[in-house]
Amino acid sequence: MRPTSPAGNSDVRRHNTAMVLAEVLRRPGLSRAGVAAATGLAKATVSSLVDRLVAARLVDESGPQSATGRGRRGTGLVPSPTGPHGLGVEIGVDYVATCLVDPTGGEHAHRVRPGDNRGRPPAEVLAAVNRAVRSAKADAGRRGVAVGGLGVAVPGLVDRVSGVVRAAPNLGWSDVDIPAALGAELPVLVDNEANLAAVGELATGELAGTRDFVLVSAEIGVGAGVVLDGAVRRGTHGFTGEIGHVCVDPDGPVCSCGARGCLERMAGPAAILADAGVTAASAPLDRPLADLAGRLAAADPAALAAVRRAGVRLGIALAGVVNLLDVPAVVLGGGYARLHDWLAGPLGEELDRRVIAAQWSPTAVLVSALGGKAAVYGAGQAALREILADPDTYIRRVADPAS
Amino acid sequence: MRPTSPAGNSDVRRHNTAMVLAEVLRRPGLSRAGVAAATGLAKATVSSLVDRLVAARLVDESGPQSATGRGRRGTGLVPSPTGPHGLGVEIGVDYVATCLVDPTGGEHAHRVRPGDNRGRPPAEVLAAVNRAVRSAKADAGRRGVAVGGLGVAVPGLVDRVSGVVRAAPNLGWSDVDIPAALGAELPVLVDNEANLAAVGELATGELAGTRDFVLVSAEIGVGAGVVLDGAVRRGTHGFTGEIGHVCVDPDGPVCSCGARGCLERMAGPAAILADAGVTAASAPLDRPLADLAGRLAAADPAALAAVRRAGVRLGIALAGVVNLLDVPAVVLGGGYARLHDWLAGPLGEELDRRVIAAQWSPTAVLVSALGGKAAVYGAGQAALREILADPDTYIRRVADPAS
Repeated sequence: MRPTSPAGNSDVRRHNTAMVLAEVLRRPGLSRAGVAAATGLAKATVSSLVDRLVAARLVDESGPQSATGRGRRGTGLVPSPTGPHGLGVEIGVDYVATCLVDPTGGEHAHRVRPGDNRGRPPAEVLAAVNRAVRSAKADAGRRGVAVGGLGVAVPGLVDRVSGVVRAAPNLGWSDVDIPAALGAELPVLVDNEANLAAVGELATGELAGTRDFVLVSAEIGVGAGVVLDGAVRRGTHGFTGEIGHVCVDPDGPVCSCGARGCLERMAGPAAILADAGVTAASAPLDRPLADLAGRLAAADPAALAAVRRAGVRLGIALAGVVNLLDVPAVVLGGGYARLHDWLAGPLGEELDRRVIAAQWSPTAVLVSALGGKAAVYGAGQAALREILADPDTYIRRVADPAS
Repeated sequence: MRPTSPAGNSDVRRHNTAMVLAEVLRRPGLSRAGVAAATGLAKATVSSLVDRLVAARLVDESGPQSATGRGRRGTGLVPSPTGPHGLGVEIGVDYVATCLVDPTGGEHAHRVRPGDNRGRPPAEVLAAVNRAVRSAKADAGRRGVAVGGLGVAVPGLVDRVSGVVRAAPNLGWSDVDIPAALGAELPVLVDNEANLAAVGELATGELAGTRDFVLVSAEIGVGAGVVLDGAVRRGTHGFTGEIGHVCVDPDGPVCSCGARGCLERMAGPAAILADAGVTAASAPLDRPLADLAGRLAAADPAALAAVRRAGVRLGIALAGVVNLLDVPAVVLGGGYARLHDWLAGPLGEELDRRVIAAQWSPTAVLVSALGGKAAVYGAGQAALREILADPDTYIRRVADPAS
């Protein structure tokens, strides 16, 4: 088929616009001629695409890029910090958080609104989310920047095509259509909180640029973000990272999911606290985890033994992951991050014992760099990445919001 | 940096040559003008790159592509079945196999040379491999085609950078440098047999075009090939797929690796045969597995119970994989393929019970389409793909073998 139809030309422009922006993001300061050389596109094509990216504030032209004295053509192209921002939202069990992420990855206007969302009707929670989103948009307005898209982190199974939350047991949700509830003004991306926490870790902090790791995060439940080749895997349906339901003992106790010996049931925060004899009436877990950390610091034998048992179980599950995927690092997030100093020993021993290639590829046991902010920041990053991966669609949407 | 250096120009040509060939592979029959439109490259650039691909027999020009009457420019470009072939080698515990794979994926000259390689000095085995390779090259010569590269499948842990076999316990190998032993004439890619079996399944048969699955294959050991987004994952070091050492019972018996309750120790072929009371003195396992299949067909209670227990254990390990990666299918290969009809039931029940998203994403339990040929065919495919992914390097190597 010869691409003479407008659809064909528009596909080519979409592809080439993305290619040009990707080149600028990869090598900030590149000139238009440099982009042409790197992409193989004609210089005139590159110039017209760059003009559109500059007009949409996705790219800035900085000072002279080289001393060639050829004026604008010689200026350097850089991602614009005042371009469209990603708006991150996290629907936690006991809070709603928001933040803005600019095209250079900077985080702004981080806000956490406490409130128990368990058992509350989803419509009520989503109304609160809508208020938080409006407030974050107003923040963006005051900063004179556009919001280009929404990312929403939830503690549950999310269908990656529709964005529907199939199940979020700790919220009591099933089949909640978040994109429909948040309106059609902006694109809405919904994903599991551990996946988005991994997106956040990937984009900033000590793990930035790390190509392969598994983040295992304990909130009320236990989830993982699987990062391979610098990207978080979402799987065929969007249901990756359910490490909380990996079996660590087929004769173990029955989990809320109905199966025996799941990691979450045997080494999740509730199990650790119960095993250590620390009372945890309900969420939030901050206070009982702080209590547990205090007992650990005071060398309380029951607390130390409970966390050691949890470390072994976490090690059994993570050794399976490392045997399967050959990742060089596991990262502890959420409640596990707070217990890292006591978990890392027994966990590391189990990895050494069970990873068949351990002598050639020791596994690092790291701690989350972003802490409690990881999921909401990752949600903003994910929304931003959707724009940066397909800038032409963003530009056309801004030019003609009805389209 | 302005790309004025020859290195810069050569990088661009390398990139563009690969892009042009990828387009022809993706849409066979495309014209030169069609390639230009699809890639955004100038028509003159495309024509010169296509000329080089045709000269190297990587691409053929077929009859008129359309009725535009513009002669050669209108002919269709297709991958050439007489272009450079990939030479696949499988070093099995009790055989060495070879085959040739042409650029359209066709398999030729499949040969299996029986011989017990266990405990034999690696140099002796590699001398036999070298003889098999020379014989396969002679086959290629008689067919009038070039061999572009070697792929070698081994039952062990392979360092993906150096191609050194770190450990192949069932061969008794450690630190065996296959690329050095097979000479410098051709590029040599070495990988684990389960990984290459997955490459083979991906390229042909019923699973061709399937984007995501995990192949779990039982030979003497148990290994997996993890396929995500249509590519076999090799991991950071090359050590992926070691599902045989995923823990299915922390209180289980001690495995040869030193850990307790590994899948291979509890549900590998040797364990199943022992549990069923079938005598298996040594490899090859063909005869005892045929004996077991006979007993299963005759509804022997001990055999049925043993395979059911193995199915449950395989289900525990694979439910963990599906929970983590959200793949829609698991594929049974090697000895497991022969037992598929009896394993699939208990395995499927365990997946239903343990996969947290099972109600929205049932997991198919499939059987390998290629059977015993999968690894050697995949080895040839992998060698071929290296050429197709970087045709410029192949073309330069053929033009100047000393470079």
